[in-house]
Amino acid sequence: MPAGPATADTAVPDLPAMTRRFTAVRAATERLVAPLSPEDCQVQSMPDASPAKWHLAHVTWFFETFVLERFEAGFRPFDASYRVLFNSYYQGVGERHPRPLRGLITQPTLAQVLAWRAQVDERVRALLRGREGEAELATLVELGLQHEQQHQELLLTDLQHALSFLPGHTPYARRWPIGAVRPEALRWFGCEGGLVEIGHDAAHDGGFAFDNETPRHRVWLDPFEIASRPLSNGDVLAFIDDGGYRRPELWLSMGWDWLNATTPARGAPLYWHAGADGTWMHHTLQGRVGVDPNTPACHLSYFEADALARWAGARLPTEAEWEHAARRYASPARGHYADRGAFHPLPAAEAASGAPVQFYGDVWEWTSSSYAPYPGFRPWPGAVGEYNGKFMCNQYVLRGGSCATPSGHARASYRNFFPPEAQWQFSGLRLARDLRN
Amino acid sequence: MPAGPATADTAVPDLPAMTRRFTAVRAATERLVAPLSPEDCQVQSMPDASPAKWHLAHVTWFFETFVLERFEAGFRPFDASYRVLFNSYYQGVGERHPRPLRGLITQPTLAQVLAWRAQVDERVRALLRGREGEAELATLVELGLQHEQQHQELLLTDLQHALSFLPGHTPYARRWPIGAVRPEALRWFGCEGGLVEIGHDAAHDGGFAFDNETPRHRVWLDPFEIASRPLSNGDVLAFIDDGGYRRPELWLSMGWDWLNATTPARGAPLYWHAGADGTWMHHTLQGRVGVDPNTPACHLSYFEADALARWAGARLPTEAEWEHAARRYASPARGHYADRGAFHPLPAAEAASGAPVQFYGDVWEWTSSSYAPYPGFRPWPGAVGEYNGKFMCNQYVLRGGSCATPSGHARASYRNFFPPEAQWQFSGLRLARDLRN
Amino acid sequence: MPAGPATADTAVPDLPAMTRRFTAVRAATERLVAPLSPEDCQVQSMPDASPAKWHLAHVTWFFETFVLERFEAGFRPFDASYRVLFNSYYQGVGERHPRPLRGLITQPTLAQVLAWRAQVDERVRALLRGREGEAELATLVELGLQHEQQHQELLLTDLQHALSFLPGHTPYARRWPIGAVRPEALRWFGCEGGLVEIGHDAAHDGGFAFDNETPRHRVWLDPFEIASRPLSNGDVLAFIDDGGYRRPELWLSMGWDWLNATTPARGAPLYWHAGADGTWMHHTLQGRVGVDPNTPACHLSYFEADALARWAGARLPTEAEWEHAARRYASPARGHYADRGAFHPLPAAEAASGAPVQFYGDVWEWTSSSYAPYPGFRPWPGAVGEYNGKFMCNQYVLRGGSCATPSGHARASYRNFFPPEAQWQFSGLRLARDLRN
Amino acid sequence: MPAGPATADTAVPDLPAMTRRFTAVRAATERLVAPLSPEDCQVQSMPDASPAKWHLAHVTWFFETFVLERFEAGFRPFDASYRVLFNSYYQGVGERHPRPLRGLITQPTLAQVLAWRAQVDERVRALLRGREGEAELATLVELGLQHEQQHQELLLTDLQHALSFLPGHTPYARRWPIGAVRPEALRWFGCEGGLVEIGHDAAHDGGFAFDNETPRHRVWLDPFEIASRPLSNGDVLAFIDDGGYRRPELWLSMGWDWLNATTPARGAPLYWHAGADGTWMHHTLQGRVGVDPNTPACHLSYFEADALARWAGARLPTEAEWEHAARRYASPARGHYADRGAFHPLPAAEAASGAPVQFYGDVWEWTSSSYAPYPGFRPWPGAVGEYNGKFMCNQYVLRGGSCATPSGHARASYRNFFPPEAQWQFSGLRLARDLRN
Repeated sequence: MPAGPATADTAVPDLPAMTRRFTAVRAATERLVAPLSPEDCQVQSMPDASPAKWHLAHVTWFFETFVLERFEAGFRPFDASYRVLFNSYYQGVGERHPRPLRGLITQPTLAQVLAWRAQVDERVRALLRGREGEAELATLVELGLQHEQQHQELLLTDLQHALSFLPGHTPYARRWPIGAVRPEALRWFGCEGGLVEIGHDAAHDGGFAFDNETPRHRVWLDPFEIASRPLSNGDVLAFIDDGGYRRPELWLSMGWDWLNATTPARGAPLYWHAGADGTWMHHTLQGRVGVDPNTPACHLSYFEADALARWAGARLPTEAEWEHAARRYASPARGHYADRGAFHPLPAAEAASGAPVQFYGDVWEWTSSSYAPYPGFRPWPGAVGEYNGKFMCNQYVLRGGSCATPSGHARASYRNFFPPEAQWQFSGLRLARDLRN
Repeated sequence: MPAGPATADTAVPDLPAMTRRFTAVRAATERLVAPLSPEDCQVQSMPDASPAKWHLAHVTWFFETFVLERFEAGFRPFDASYRVLFNSYYQGVGERHPRPLRGLITQPTLAQVLAWRAQVDERVRALLRGREGEAELATLVELGLQHEQQHQELLLTDLQHALSFLPGHTPYARRWPIGAVRPEALRWFGCEGGLVEIGHDAAHDGGFAFDNETPRHRVWLDPFEIASRPLSNGDVLAFIDDGGYRRPELWLSMGWDWLNATTPARGAPLYWHAGADGTWMHHTLQGRVGVDPNTPACHLSYFEADALARWAGARLPTEAEWEHAARRYASPARGHYADRGAFHPLPAAEAASGAPVQFYGDVWEWTSSSYAPYPGFRPWPGAVGEYNGKFMCNQYVLRGGSCATPSGHARASYRNFFPPEAQWQFSGLRLARDLRN
Repeated sequence: MPAGPATADTAVPDLPAMTRRFTAVRAATERLVAPLSPEDCQVQSMPDASPAKWHLAHVTWFFETFVLERFEAGFRPFDASYRVLFNSYYQGVGERHPRPLRGLITQPTLAQVLAWRAQVDERVRALLRGREGEAELATLVELGLQHEQQHQELLLTDLQHALSFLPGHTPYARRWPIGAVRPEALRWFGCEGGLVEIGHDAAHDGGFAFDNETPRHRVWLDPFEIASRPLSNGDVLAFIDDGGYRRPELWLSMGWDWLNATTPARGAPLYWHAGADGTWMHHTLQGRVGVDPNTPACHLSYFEADALARWAGARLPTEAEWEHAARRYASPARGHYADRGAFHPLPAAEAASGAPVQFYGDVWEWTSSSYAPYPGFRPWPGAVGEYNGKFMCNQYVLRGGSCATPSGHARASYRNFFPPEAQWQFSGLRLARDLRN
Repeated sequence: MPAGPATADTAVPDLPAMTRRFTAVRAATERLVAPLSPEDCQVQSMPDASPAKWHLAHVTWFFETFVLERFEAGFRPFDASYRVLFNSYYQGVGERHPRPLRGLITQPTLAQVLAWRAQVDERVRALLRGREGEAELATLVELGLQHEQQHQELLLTDLQHALSFLPGHTPYARRWPIGAVRPEALRWFGCEGGLVEIGHDAAHDGGFAFDNETPRHRVWLDPFEIASRPLSNGDVLAFIDDGGYRRPELWLSMGWDWLNATTPARGAPLYWHAGADGTWMHHTLQGRVGVDPNTPACHLSYFEADALARWAGARLPTEAEWEHAARRYASPARGHYADRGAFHPLPAAEAASGAPVQFYGDVWEWTSSSYAPYPGFRPWPGAVGEYNGKFMCNQYVLRGGSCATPSGHARASYRNFFPPEAQWQFSGLRLARDLRN
């Protein structure tokens, strides 16, 4: 089931901008599932993941519930039962199907969900005709599209997890090898810090932002240094060889317990398998392939990222340090995103000589910052206010986007977040350290 | 997705008997899944259940592994990975895919499994050509067919469980209402007991038997009485109205704990739902329908069956009592089986005036007998010896077949068995009591 | 904290028989805890076990609730809250303190419980004065004493479990080594079977029996052979050396899962520890001592007993076979009981030449019989009817008493029972096999 | 078992300061257990709690391991097995007894632990003789005393939890009622913020600080307001009456799941019980008493604190805001500590007119700050470096000390921390809000 690249920027000429964008984003989602069977789209391999079919349906539910129900004259839902089946976590919208049971929703079938998508697409396009300029409508459609892009990424990472249980290792995509790979020594770049501003800045970050990126606010930063590139698989291999997974002094107490909660204890990143000849293979969306030492490491938990940093004599950056450094060294937010069709991190295209590279794309970078409201944070009004704020507990912020993030979705102020044990995202890290004066 | 009746005795003329029977049983399995989507066949709703697709594949694995691998010249498996994927529990055959993860096997797809079935069917038929008389081959093919019939029943009960999570209540079969329903008072029939024989008796039970039905052996029975019919939904309703689910003195200690292990505590059979107007509905393969008081009760655990019997001032029969009574009062083994296409118990077709009715078909009847080896029991030699013997612990014997059992499969000596908490089979009970002299 | 022998038959002259017996049994319990600290008596090391203090209190609750509350004029409880705190499982008596939380009952203290015991003892003795002959009173007092003797055994086995968590291996008793040990080859003794009777027989078994031993009834037995002695530690060592714990074909399916449910998987009986030099040590009430090959094996689960028997080319006896053989070969019920003060199985005192030995005492012997009501079984009336009947599910019968059973407590018809995974009793096995004609 | 007040500042004249302080702190611990039985000191009521005896032993282990083993000539441990038994979490010191099994350590007894304490006390005092001025020794002894004071508080809160399982409600202390109670309206006090410093400041906070309080560093604060007093029980009662525990929009998503993870769902703070007449009682160390509306609320989880703040239209302060406000409004750190002997929060002694009250003592105040390293944080070298840093994940900071904190232990920079679900500490909250310009 080889997949083509997922491109969101398909040109659809002669249509107003929002309609064109709407059409392109919706089509990009469907391209992601084109190589998949109804069976592949059905399964849920852990409570944290959702079936591909559920993602297809849920993002459609979002448009039907938050856009059509509000703005469409004579609104009638495609199927009233979907309101419960495909509500993710919006208490304000009413009942929800239990999350761990999403894999049991065999009805509607994939074909029926695609038919629902087609109908909702038509209805949204009809609604937009002549009303594109209406601010509230445009805001909600844009939110729906940003939401759908987030689910494009989750669809891929959840699919990768589900496919990992199959012995056949059938690739989802066939673009391997991806390109030339070249060792790149890690270098340090300084930031003097001081009283800086972080948070969404429309002038540089574009018009849209989630509520959790606001308000822009002042933060004091002591001087620090940031690494030239994400930590690589080669760094992880050196950590393993140095006994890193068996040395408690390198780990948070909770991380050590997490390591030892499985039998045998964890000893490598998720999806890594030691081959018979001692080499490491890993499960990717390109099938089971060898671990390349010069590629950014991914599928690391926060615990692993933290331990790797400690082992390297460094630390994770705070999210304020990350954003400050990224704004200084890497603007605009270019990188290897999902439109490359690799669905796996790539080595840097160019040497990290003049400046740090790969702040954006390839791998999300764990920061040491607990996910918390910015000073003065106000959730959006209404049910969409449940989007971000209520999750601000026991999660850590990741920055920069990944190889599964749609192009154009990430930005300097973007805050992704996951619990510290989460591994199934394309999550890696970039080292930071205090600047010794 | 309405299903037609599952008939195993389709006439295929001009073929030798075993080939004809093989063809008919295999076709009957496929008729069961004809109304289902690939999605419906994919899901596993609890560890005890398996996906319909897995059943289709596993019974095919049985023929490929135990028949073709042994007898086919130049044997090559359809796909070597299936040997692990679709092995249920045969340690002697090697590795197995973990049972709770059967629902994650998206590859092969349903279409690929059906193609495998077709190929194996052709190979078995080719093998049988001119060798039907060979005893060992015939025995293993017959075992494969009996095995497949057992999985036909499990496929239906597992499907019913999976469909119970869907809010739409779409029927699997549409044959409702099934027929005239008439109250039938419960009457008692005596058995004098004494030194009797139980176990497989080829003269009356047909040539095939599972190893657990042998050897035929002597048992002493004190005089007892047996009820004229299975316990009905009306009896269960009276039990509920009498507070039966809330009176600890009626329950085994382990049953009482089982009742109270859910929140809220169990208060009715599986699949029963109290309607808004106080009437009871239940989930069936015919959709969600009203509970009919004159139909045999089913989806009862051993705990419920035991408590119902105690409440009724009676007890469950032992399996020896059941078999002795059934041989006396109900020979041959006629009843409402799966070929009726009801997939739900039916009321008795005739009054239980002259003799007890419905020993066979409609509902499996719990006995008070723990599943144990008969005196002198020897498991079959080789890997098929794992078929029965190793499960003889903490399970209770059920007798008589059900509305989901293929016609021709049950017999007087047939021993079904499930743990006492199992509810998802068509399991009911028939009362017994000591004969007071 | 060395313990003296626990003797229940201390002579207390000049008192009527029941009062003397009451005094002796109650004193025997207190002798068991004499070497223990309040801390030792407080702890509960698993939900299946109870603190020693709880046992002391619960048996007192039994007398207060079932004897004094019924027969004492102007009855007032010592402390009304104890009725709930020390009720084990009698639903008919009302609320109960949750079993897994028995270890948290710090109040009353051990001293307070002993004071309660003394007061109840006085009240029961006062009650008995002049009323010893009253049948119902005598029956309930005798039941209370039999009950207390059962808890004497549980107190020891629960204590052994609790002490196993202490690194110091302090012995509870110091009588080691216990005596001369001599290899004894296993021999077989035949029983022709036929239509036999089992169950309580007052003429041979004494006047008292639990309800579960009745009614005496007929059973058909095919001819069989029974082993001359219980399986020894040497037999278990040979099983281990033969890979017995790693060969699935020797195990019940549920037993195999049980073996592998721990990490690492179970590979020896409970309390066995492989020493540095490859020899086996085990935790006993005599401290940590070497495993002696000529001593009956104990702390075996039903799963282990079943696998050992299969490995030995034999099987477990049914409880009817056991009782029939014991009545034939070993009457009266003499053996090494708790009054020996060993609290550990002993080798046979005499060679098993003329007859099988050690049916009684040393180790309880697992039978293949699921714990079920005898034909015609009626539980005792009233709340004491919860004593036995409601536990007749998913448990297996053990016979013969052990080194922790009070002398005089066991008899041929006595039925002990535990779930198949239970190991913390002094549970072993004796082989049986079909007699091949 | 009434307890007297726990005073750490007992005057012991004529001894050098460190020896005097050592003697006083050690004696204070023993005063806490004076009213307790060996049984009370034995039990562990949840994995997060430890037995009182374990606390007594562990703090002694700390002195033996980190002070005597290092500085004592010819060091020999009191008992070598204690090194493992009473090591809490120091991987650098070697093996540990599993935390959830601390309640099973019946040997050593309470008396033996007290004897160990006495011996260690003598050895430490002997060591100090003439060496009080040695910096490293003094630092480690002081750390041991600070550590012991922390365990004095835990001993009380763990004891309160264990006693909550007893039906008798026997008070630990008998000082009730504690004093006059008076309603106090909540008022707001402003802080202009700006670039401020937080962290340990020896000039104001005293010489000792844990590593996690350092280094002192700059933080930017936007203007905010802080409440005049902690939230009271009356506020919690109003929240309950307003349906606060049943309104998902008030809760973090994880908090809502936590509420509903018990059956029935949580609906009041820990230890609260609705009385028959609708009034609220709660379990305290003074027995079961009525909930007083004018007393600071405690035993709140972070989830509850966060929801209460949202319901009140406010928020929790960050730890920087709390420290900044406390330094401004409440210096020095006076309050109701454990030496009052109340072991329960008290109402404010004086009206909060001129300034906010009760920053210190009574209840720890949850802040919105995840427990994280300060910029430039360095753990202490050696095994004591495991004291704080490795716990900096998924915990939230509490400030100010409580009614169970030893007098003299808290300070403005003190950081306590617990996971968001923890309730068994004396944890409450003080509201904050943005200053609207």
